[in-house]
Formats: sequence, structure tokens, C-alpha cells
Amino acid sequence: MTSAKIAVIGGDGIGPEVTAEALKALTAVAGQDAFDFVHYDLGAERWQRTGEVLPDSVLEELKGVDAIVLGAVGAAPGSKAIPSGLLERGLLLKLRFAFDHAVNLRPSKLYPGVPTPLAPRIVDGKDVDFVVVREGTEGLYCGNGGAVRVGTPHELATEVSVNTAYGVERVVRDAYRRAQARRGHLTLLHKHNVLVNAGSLWNRVFTEVGEEFPDVERRYLHIDAAMIALVVDPSQFDVIVTDNLFGDIVTDLAAAVTGGIGLAASANINPTGEFPSMFEPVHGSAPDIAGKGIADPTAAISSMALLLDHLGRAEDAERIDAAVSADIAARGDRSSSTVETGDRIAAALA
Amino acid sequence: MTSAKIAVIGGDGIGPEVTAEALKALTAVAGQDAFDFVHYDLGAERWQRTGEVLPDSVLEELKGVDAIVLGAVGAAPGSKAIPSGLLERGLLLKLRFAFDHAVNLRPSKLYPGVPTPLAPRIVDGKDVDFVVVREGTEGLYCGNGGAVRVGTPHELATEVSVNTAYGVERVVRDAYRRAQARRGHLTLLHKHNVLVNAGSLWNRVFTEVGEEFPDVERRYLHIDAAMIALVVDPSQFDVIVTDNLFGDIVTDLAAAVTGGIGLAASANINPTGEFPSMFEPVHGSAPDIAGKGIADPTAAISSMALLLDHLGRAEDAERIDAAVSADIAARGDRSSSTVETGDRIAAALA
Ligand SMILES: CC(C)[C@H](C(=O)O)[C@@H](O)C(=O)O
Ligand SMILES: CC(C)[C@H](C(=O)O)[C@@H](O)C(=O)O
Repeated sequence: MTSAKIAVIGGDGIGPEVTAEALKALTAVAGQDAFDFVHYDLGAERWQRTGEVLPDSVLEELKGVDAIVLGAVGAAPGSKAIPSGLLERGLLLKLRFAFDHAVNLRPSKLYPGVPTPLAPRIVDGKDVDFVVVREGTEGLYCGNGGAVRVGTPHELATEVSVNTAYGVERVVRDAYRRAQARRGHLTLLHKHNVLVNAGSLWNRVFTEVGEEFPDVERRYLHIDAAMIALVVDPSQFDVIVTDNLFGDIVTDLAAAVTGGIGLAASANINPTGEFPSMFEPVHGSAPDIAGKGIADPTAAISSMALLLDHLGRAEDAERIDAAVSADIAARGDRSSSTVETGDRIAAALA
Repeated sequence: MTSAKIAVIGGDGIGPEVTAEALKALTAVAGQDAFDFVHYDLGAERWQRTGEVLPDSVLEELKGVDAIVLGAVGAAPGSKAIPSGLLERGLLLKLRFAFDHAVNLRPSKLYPGVPTPLAPRIVDGKDVDFVVVREGTEGLYCGNGGAVRVGTPHELATEVSVNTAYGVERVVRDAYRRAQARRGHLTLLHKHNVLVNAGSLWNRVFTEVGEEFPDVERRYLHIDAAMIALVVDPSQFDVIVTDNLFGDIVTDLAAAVTGGIGLAASANINPTGEFPSMFEPVHGSAPDIAGKGIADPTAAISSMALLLDHLGRAEDAERIDAAVSADIAARGDRSSSTVETGDRIAAALA
């Protein structure tokens, strides 16, 4: 087996810290020769040094890798040093759009022993284990808005949610496939009673594609009702499919109820394989704890299971998942340093 | 005191059931002569009988009342009898827009003894008591979207979020005033790192108006991060201000963590008083339990406290709040019928 080429973008804040532990796990499970890591210096520091966020030449180079590992990007909210959203849009969203990451996959599983903010009566004896398939290349994330009379009392600002049958169908189909391979339930989250145009499209495609998957039970839920469902009975979900913004919102809630953003992994998948897919923890750069060595690397490590799965190494992926869940169960609510957790999981894998 | 004219729209499903109990409480607290109730037969049944949702003549008439009491509107999701969203848009949203209900007020308070889906360690000894001020006349609720090639594989559907300085400023100012009258904290929820145009407008107005309220501490939070905050530490919030759709989403979560949608009251306020304001429970028509007499009327009754407050009867409003919280504390997790609960609260008020 030739080694797979992995681009590594540690990024900002705790990004590089958790990424180092993720790579440790990758190497531990697959051996020194399985991967060829190429590190890219991108993020807040690079921008402050050079004014570059993601140079075209780097984007070009990244096209040739087998997968991208991303830590986190983004300055502290309210930071004066970096314009708000510059890195998020210029780097993270740029990669998702340039590499056509249609399927933003975010699994949520409540591991035994993990402290959850939910009451025992909600979770005890229940299996909370679901996957959100979030659309990644359309909706309100297209940057398709504008403003006039900016800064005046007559300012008008718009944001446009763009939805195409092409974009909706591919992510809905992906979600049906995953539901079929899991427990056979798929829930569409939207707000079609208000967002009639986008809602009709999502509904129609959801129903039409569903006809091809007679063994998958499908259900529709308004996004607001889903907020309630996720805290009063999260075990009801198997696979959820939704648009880009609803997906952003719902996956943070999903992470919170299943033990927190410190555990939530994600994959940004290009379904055709034309471009590299990207693997990252759901959490951000957490500037408040950066440099302290206390960030939980679990989400970054779990994202490596998604990467391995994507690269056809299902067995290695399962080993990472198993090591992570064993470690989580063993740690209870004791906390350890970033490196300690990474070392423990790597040791279990070696 | 001449009696105030109140339009009553019971609506669909459990709407009329809970509304009857709300009126009972109103009469109990303020006496038989305080209000003149005019009932309007609007909703699913009327539409099925006559094809009318909200005739212009009725809209005209409603302009003349002092306040509107709404139960709930909307058919069962997936119902074939009524086009999806027809009643929501033709009646509920129509009233919010026609009567310029800029401030959609939604208080959330965790009463002692109320079962919450959150773990004891999250809520014990904490005061969870906050208000969401949701913008009600702009954003993605304007119906400003469209679609081409509908029903084909080339369909394109858009939804436009419309935000004006005028609309944002009045709701933000209202929220600052409320924060000033409460614990002095105001949080803006948005997603300005992605929705740059709308986000910049909201941010700018939030900062500018904030200068007039030096005693109010202001904070910005991304909508996704708010999902986490609301389940891991809801007691951190005092007043939240946000746009129409984020407000829709966040208030269902807020209701869920403070004991459920059965308790969540809301007011749709026209700030100038040019048009009547409207008071309704946050919950919907709940077709699954309609007609069974088991719907919890508490949210509808609490909405009457907001109505009384709006009509300048602050003392009566406080009496309703006190009766409701005493009843909630007394009931624990025993359930009673709609009428039993309504009678109990009315008796306490008489
Ligand atoms: C950082 C931000 C642009 C991003 C998003 O909104 O998608 C993040 O919240 C996420 O969920 O990956
Ligand atoms: C019924 C629906 C149109 C409405 C909304 O989205 O505003 C409801 O969810 C609410 O929160 O009042």
C-alpha cells in the first residue's frame, strides 16, 4: 500500500494542539508508513504576518491530497485584530465550497459514563446514537446577500438561502443510504410552513428519493420542534438530514446533549471523490483555553475514524472508535491534559 | 373604567380549549366587566367550510380592538386536507405582519418543582429566568423567496432574509429597556461570521443603541453556541435579542429546558400602539391531543399576564403570574385535565 497524502491544517487557538493528538492516533492505528503528512501554516497568524488567508497556489496544491485534517480556525469573537468571520469564510467555508463538500457528516453518540446536561430520566437505559447529515454547499452559506445604505438609519441588509434540486438530492440520497445501513429511520428538519419555496423543494426531494428506499421510515419535523425533541427524547433519532444553517444549529445542540462539543467529530465529504474530503472536530478554536494544553482532543481523534472510513480503512476506523469509547468510559468526569488524553488513546491503539 | 375590547381567536386543535381557560383567568382576575370578548371563528374549519382564512373585513374589524387573544392555528403536519403552512401564513403571520408586531416577547422561567429535561447539576440552586425578544416582522419570515423550474431536477428555490436598520433598531431598543428593568444583561444571538450583511447590521445597531444603555452589559453569542449555552447553563441569560428565525428556534429550546412548551407564553407587541397586540401560547394546535381535554392551558393563561401588563394592569398581571407559579409548584408532575387546571387557577384568582 502506498502512503496516503494528508494535508494538515492545524489552524488557530487549540486547533494545532488537538490536531497533533489526532495525528498520533492515526499513526498509532495505521503505522508510520500509511500516511504522508504535509503541514500547512494557515490561520490567524499567517494572515497577520502576510495578509494571506488561503493563497490560490495552496488551494491548487490541496486538490492533490487524499484528505485534509483541519484543527480549527477563527479569532476570538470580538477580537479587534482580525475582522469577524474572515478566517471562517476565507479558509473553512472556502475549502468546503471549493472542494464541494456536499455532505457534512456529524455523528452524535452518548457514551456510557459521559456526563450529559440531560436528566437521568431522559437518557437512562436509552440508546442515544444518531448522525446528522448537514448539507454543506448551499443555503444561507453561499455568501449571497448584500446591503445598501450601510451605516445609516436606512440600511437594508439581505441574506439569500440558495437551494437547488441537485444539491438537495445528493445530500438527501446520502442520508437515506446511511439510514439504510443503520436503524432505518430518517428525519428531515426544515421549516416548510414558513420557508415555503426552499421547504417545498426539500420536502419533494425527500419524498421522491424516499420512494427508492422503501425500507427506510421517513419523518418530517420542524426545526423548532426538533429543539424540543433533542432535549426531551434524543434517542428517537437515527439519521437526520437538513440544510446548512439548520444543520449548524442542530449539531451544536446534538453535541451538547451527548457530552459536549469536546467529543463531536465531523467529516466534510465530497461525494464524487473529485476533491479531497476534510475532517475536523465540530468545536472551534476556543481562544480562551488555547496554549494551556487542556483542550480535549477527543473530537479531533474521533474525526480520524471518519477519515479512515472514508479512505477505505473501515477496520482502523472501528479501532479508533473503540479506543475512544473505552477511554471516555474510563475517564468518567476526571479531566486530563490534551497530551495525556492523546497519549492514552494512542497507546491503546498501538 | 370602560371595558377593553378583546378579540378572541381560538383557532385549531387545542387552541379553543386552552383559550377558554385563559379567558376564565382574565375574568377571574379583572372581573366580569373589565373585558368585552368578541369571538372570531377562524382557522382550519372555517377554511374548509368557506375557503377563507382571514377575510379583509375581519382584518379591518380587528384593527379596532384593544388586544387579540390567539389559541393556536395549523393543521396536523402531513395533513392532506389543508395545504402546509396555509393557516400559519394566512392567519398567524398575517396578523403579526399586518399589525406590525415588531416585538415577539417570550419569557422563560424555570419554576420550582417543574420537571425539566436538564440534569439537577445544571439547574439546582440556579435561577433560570430569562426573556427572549424576537424580532417579528422581518428576516426570513417576509415570504420573500421564489423558485424556478419547480418540480424538475433543475429546480432552484430561494428564501431571502430581509433586515432593516429601522426594524432591527426598534426591537434592539426594546430589548435594552427590558434588560435595564431586569438584571441588566443583554445577549445578541446571530451568526455574523457567516451571515455578514445581516450580521453587521445587527451588530452595529446592537453596539450603537447599547451606548445609550451604559448600565446594561451586552454580549454577543453565535446562534450555534447559544444551543450549548442553553443546555449547559441557562441561568446565564437575562434578556436575549435575536432575529425572527433564530428567535423561533431558540424559544422552543428555551421552553423545553424550562419545563416545556405547555408553560411557554408569548406576546406579539406593536410598539407604537397603532395596532392591537396579540397574546398566544408558544405551542401549536397539537392535533394529536385535540378534543381530549388534556392540553395544559398554563401557557395560554400566562399569556394573559402579558396581555394585562400591556393594557396597563400590572397588578392583575402579577396576580396571574403568582397564581400560575403557585399552581405549578403545587401540581408537581401530577397531570390534570385542561378544565381542572383552568378552574384551579381561576379559583385562586377570584
Ligand atoms: C466556524 C463556522 C463558520 C462553522 C459553520 O458555521 O459551519 C462552524 O460553526 C461549524 O459548525 O463547523
Ligand atoms: C406556527 C409558526 C408559523 C410559528 C413561527 O414560526 O413563528 C410558531 O412556530 C411560533 O413560534 O410562533
